[in-house]
Amino acid sequence: MSHTIKVGVVGAGRIGKIHTSNIVKNFPNVEVKAVADVYADNIKDWAASLGIQNVYDDYKKIIEDKEIDVVVICSSTDTHSQITIEAAQAGKHIFCEKPIDYDVDRIHQALAAVKKAGVKFQVGFNRRFDHNFKKVRDLIQSGEIGDLQIVKVISRDPAPPSPEYVKVSGGMFLDMTIHDFDMVRYLTGSEVVEVYTNAGVLVDKAIGEAGDVDTALISLKFKNGALGMIDNCRQAVYGYDQRVEILGTKGGITVTNDLPTNVVVSKEGAVTSDKPKYFFLERYMESFEDEMKMFFESIANGTEPVVSGIDGLKPVLIGLAAKKSYEEGKPVKLED
Amino acid sequence: MSHTIKVGVVGAGRIGKIHTSNIVKNFPNVEVKAVADVYADNIKDWAASLGIQNVYDDYKKIIEDKEIDVVVICSSTDTHSQITIEAAQAGKHIFCEKPIDYDVDRIHQALAAVKKAGVKFQVGFNRRFDHNFKKVRDLIQSGEIGDLQIVKVISRDPAPPSPEYVKVSGGMFLDMTIHDFDMVRYLTGSEVVEVYTNAGVLVDKAIGEAGDVDTALISLKFKNGALGMIDNCRQAVYGYDQRVEILGTKGGITVTNDLPTNVVVSKEGAVTSDKPKYFFLERYMESFEDEMKMFFESIANGTEPVVSGIDGLKPVLIGLAAKKSYEEGKPVKLED
Amino acid sequence: MSHTIKVGVVGAGRIGKIHTSNIVKNFPNVEVKAVADVYADNIKDWAASLGIQNVYDDYKKIIEDKEIDVVVICSSTDTHSQITIEAAQAGKHIFCEKPIDYDVDRIHQALAAVKKAGVKFQVGFNRRFDHNFKKVRDLIQSGEIGDLQIVKVISRDPAPPSPEYVKVSGGMFLDMTIHDFDMVRYLTGSEVVEVYTNAGVLVDKAIGEAGDVDTALISLKFKNGALGMIDNCRQAVYGYDQRVEILGTKGGITVTNDLPTNVVVSKEGAVTSDKPKYFFLERYMESFEDEMKMFFESIANGTEPVVSGIDGLKPVLIGLAAKKSYEEGKPVKLED
Amino acid sequence: MSHTIKVGVVGAGRIGKIHTSNIVKNFPNVEVKAVADVYADNIKDWAASLGIQNVYDDYKKIIEDKEIDVVVICSSTDTHSQITIEAAQAGKHIFCEKPIDYDVDRIHQALAAVKKAGVKFQVGFNRRFDHNFKKVRDLIQSGEIGDLQIVKVISRDPAPPSPEYVKVSGGMFLDMTIHDFDMVRYLTGSEVVEVYTNAGVLVDKAIGEAGDVDTALISLKFKNGALGMIDNCRQAVYGYDQRVEILGTKGGITVTNDLPTNVVVSKEGAVTSDKPKYFFLERYMESFEDEMKMFFESIANGTEPVVSGIDGLKPVLIGLAAKKSYEEGKPVKLED
Repeated sequence: MSHTIKVGVVGAGRIGKIHTSNIVKNFPNVEVKAVADVYADNIKDWAASLGIQNVYDDYKKIIEDKEIDVVVICSSTDTHSQITIEAAQAGKHIFCEKPIDYDVDRIHQALAAVKKAGVKFQVGFNRRFDHNFKKVRDLIQSGEIGDLQIVKVISRDPAPPSPEYVKVSGGMFLDMTIHDFDMVRYLTGSEVVEVYTNAGVLVDKAIGEAGDVDTALISLKFKNGALGMIDNCRQAVYGYDQRVEILGTKGGITVTNDLPTNVVVSKEGAVTSDKPKYFFLERYMESFEDEMKMFFESIANGTEPVVSGIDGLKPVLIGLAAKKSYEEGKPVKLED
Repeated sequence: MSHTIKVGVVGAGRIGKIHTSNIVKNFPNVEVKAVADVYADNIKDWAASLGIQNVYDDYKKIIEDKEIDVVVICSSTDTHSQITIEAAQAGKHIFCEKPIDYDVDRIHQALAAVKKAGVKFQVGFNRRFDHNFKKVRDLIQSGEIGDLQIVKVISRDPAPPSPEYVKVSGGMFLDMTIHDFDMVRYLTGSEVVEVYTNAGVLVDKAIGEAGDVDTALISLKFKNGALGMIDNCRQAVYGYDQRVEILGTKGGITVTNDLPTNVVVSKEGAVTSDKPKYFFLERYMESFEDEMKMFFESIANGTEPVVSGIDGLKPVLIGLAAKKSYEEGKPVKLED
Repeated sequence: MSHTIKVGVVGAGRIGKIHTSNIVKNFPNVEVKAVADVYADNIKDWAASLGIQNVYDDYKKIIEDKEIDVVVICSSTDTHSQITIEAAQAGKHIFCEKPIDYDVDRIHQALAAVKKAGVKFQVGFNRRFDHNFKKVRDLIQSGEIGDLQIVKVISRDPAPPSPEYVKVSGGMFLDMTIHDFDMVRYLTGSEVVEVYTNAGVLVDKAIGEAGDVDTALISLKFKNGALGMIDNCRQAVYGYDQRVEILGTKGGITVTNDLPTNVVVSKEGAVTSDKPKYFFLERYMESFEDEMKMFFESIANGTEPVVSGIDGLKPVLIGLAAKKSYEEGKPVKLED
Repeated sequence: MSHTIKVGVVGAGRIGKIHTSNIVKNFPNVEVKAVADVYADNIKDWAASLGIQNVYDDYKKIIEDKEIDVVVICSSTDTHSQITIEAAQAGKHIFCEKPIDYDVDRIHQALAAVKKAGVKFQVGFNRRFDHNFKKVRDLIQSGEIGDLQIVKVISRDPAPPSPEYVKVSGGMFLDMTIHDFDMVRYLTGSEVVEVYTNAGVLVDKAIGEAGDVDTALISLKFKNGALGMIDNCRQAVYGYDQRVEILGTKGGITVTNDLPTNVVVSKEGAVTSDKPKYFFLERYMESFEDEMKMFFESIANGTEPVVSGIDGLKPVLIGLAAKKSYEEGKPVKLED
């Protein structure tokens, strides 16, 4: 990166702040020129502490700023596709948080705009950059365990969201499982061709009343013949449970949780060890840095982003199929 | 047990020999008076080494022996229900290997004969007596982890059976998964109400040509609302993989495999530990002793056997539903 | 073993009963003809339940019984060498519990009697037959980890003995550590040439008042240049802690404890797993069977016992050196 | 920290670069104004990339710069005490890498200068800030495991240093073990009163020819009565082995190594997992950041540094005693 890349961040909620801070700290040749947030007043002090001089309440000021090369979209999901389209039309490279949209047509429109503009576009599936899962992917791709037979992802949150959040979340399959739909594609290198959803409301009745489920075992069939299973729950009281387990014709792979420490205490009553790292910030902090690093490298080197627009679209299609399967009580095939 | 109980064993293949040897070694007040096997000549030396004096090629000699109190049925599955009926009619207590039969009507007939005769009848679901799984069951029953949400059983064999065996096995769901169908009933204390089978031939084409599958992820719904999953494969090259994993509203339980030793070797190339105990004989040897102990205790104390006739019937019904789900490509409900 | 070997057991305390029961159960060609114990009345029922017909209060009746081929010595330590001498003179093979004696001269006399008589003599260092430690020994001997650098044995009891026991025990180094002195010889295949004892009374003052220590870290130098450390404590409240850890020029070996089950429970407060198996009976039960099996094999095959008289002598010499080092506060060399 | 603190770094070798980079990245209110290194030309590009404008070949320019508040001393050990004295006399706060000096008198002179000047002085025992060891310390201090009985530190490097390095290193006890001498003081909160060193040359003869050892088991006695052991080796081929293990009257604590990933691969030949993180940079990176954070907090808040001058002195005294014990072949007491 020979000259300074200028960035505008849209949306400075939790994830927007993380991305901004990572960029400021880790990339001497990248400058966050502006941040836009509908609650601009709330973020001024935070922006100043990072040396960011421009804080807007309207993202259009970022789109219109000709100096800005890159837009990082961290606003609410319903705005992702529109901002993507505008940023692409303005010739800016785009990093967009997941999901691109809940509406497949709008995703297609956004991806078409990106394609037409010829800009870089990377989706925020940060877990692909996790040290554990990246090693699993590499082992699979290298043929270390032969042909894939069974792929299982366990992904459970430490505490359930509020019913208010649930109502606007797009539903568990598009809000939470979408990371796991991406993960199985990433790990297997194969597409999902059929989904069957076994789910229920077993954590909090209020989630059911809000029209959603909170616990699910989702069966998958892959194009390469492998079988898959995603295990989701909105609440594991012992903490954030993030594991994968693979069986192949030449071996198996398991990944246990990352723990805050490796200390084990043995007492008369019991032998106790740490619970998993608390939640996604603790567990995936490095992956947020690494996805951004890869994004700026693709810009600097003119290479394709490692998480493409299609990678943003496919998990939404699987999520919609999972939802349909749950509603209809039968398996749902995905079209090619 | 104040007087000596006399036992006749029908079928002296691998499992018949194990049961016979366990009885001879561990129960001073139980005498194996006779063993019947269609290949009687082959087992005479073995029987003599254990001090068993009567070896028959026809099991009817055991049925007709008025001194014999107990029949242990270890012959081929297609003979279980018929011998059960005859033994019951002769007033003998019965220990019967799983499954009772592949045919539900014949199971009902056998159980009716047992009921009419008022004899003890225990089915050989030995894994209920395994140290790991018994503790899981006890923790669940005590309320330690609250209400059940997710119940998963991983059960993979170290090497696939021959296609010849597959043809007469009744199919993977009734031959192999039947243990896991029993295990989920045992662990949850709840009945399976719906089954969806995601399966394929991923180990050996010859198994497919013999009309069976070799790999499956089976989704379950339980009467108590919990979701379940059974993970089966006819071949895990690293050995016999036998684990369970439970999520409840107050906690989770995991069980890893038993290993031959706890030795870990760290070298420049890798850190290596033992593979799981090789196969079911190594893994479940103690449980074979314990199930027999419980059986003779129920006879001595006049209590109900811990694995009942209904416990023998239900896994067959689930297995047939799993097979139907696979054949029809959709979930199958079980009747009450 | 073509004909029946007849055995007399001297001493039917805890370990005597275990050996007797193992012989009765596992060796069809070995008969326990008689048991002698100073409290003969207390063991008559137990002996009868195993089908043993002769119970004596004087061990000399066993020595004098010409039919008896083998004497298993499980009486109190102060009687071991005398009974060994008498049994050897009577031409009987001998299995002797550890230690042979606390007095080196008496050990030499016993071993001389054994040598003169040409009978088999095996010492009860059962831990050599433990599945974990046997594998460690095999790995070392095969050169898997190169030349030895560091050898560490952790051996801690779950609860301290009574002060009364301590007074007659010969002291911790000869009573408890003696197993570990044997273990380091077994694992390394090398002799200890120097000992330094760092010890204290940190569990129970009454043990100190009885003239003993209860906690020790014992530094060792081996003839092959390796360094060693034995970690002993009379009380680890979490259970019986039995581990070894080896470093060699090509790798390291660690052994964790055997657990009753592999169940792990994760709750909001903590992740808990099993404590180690409670004490030596639970932990080393299989090794007691295996040492006896090897002893009878050496008789049947005319081979040397795997734990020789010298193997009985050396740990006593090291134990006495450890005691002297503690008393004098400096390292003590062992003569060749 | 209301105003910007200005820092001068002396010595920009490996550890100097790490500290500098951490300060630049993590402390917006701290500015690295200058770096001095005897090879100033070699570090100019690196300094420029971090925005540091002044690069000197003479550390005295930093001492003389009145704007500079803090000196971070990362030069060679033989210069630590002299620079400490000059920086203290110039009224600057000091962060000094370990050890302060190999010469006890010179340490006393440096600490006296610090005391007279009333400046903050923190020694670079970064491992105190490690997530694992900090938790162990907290558990011990809280009384969770009762009174201490046994304290063991395993600390082995992945590869031996060159004989050239060994010659100027001060010897293994002052160069490598010094961290472990600090660790046992930190963990126990008690002073070492006696040392016995069991050591040898088991890795590389050239190290012996350079007058040093490469493998050691060091026995310790603590003022509080506990026993201790440090296990050092200059080469563990499987990687950087950093563990502690504690026994107390109410429980035990063990800490296993940090691994790069939690991936376990099970194949027909073996079950393999990751080796420990490679070396101290990978293993202790966070602790380097945290020690610096605590140092600047003590300056900002006017509190005592968490690693004091006495904490810098004591490990040197223990190291010299360990060396003497090795040379004389007997235990060495430490004076109060």
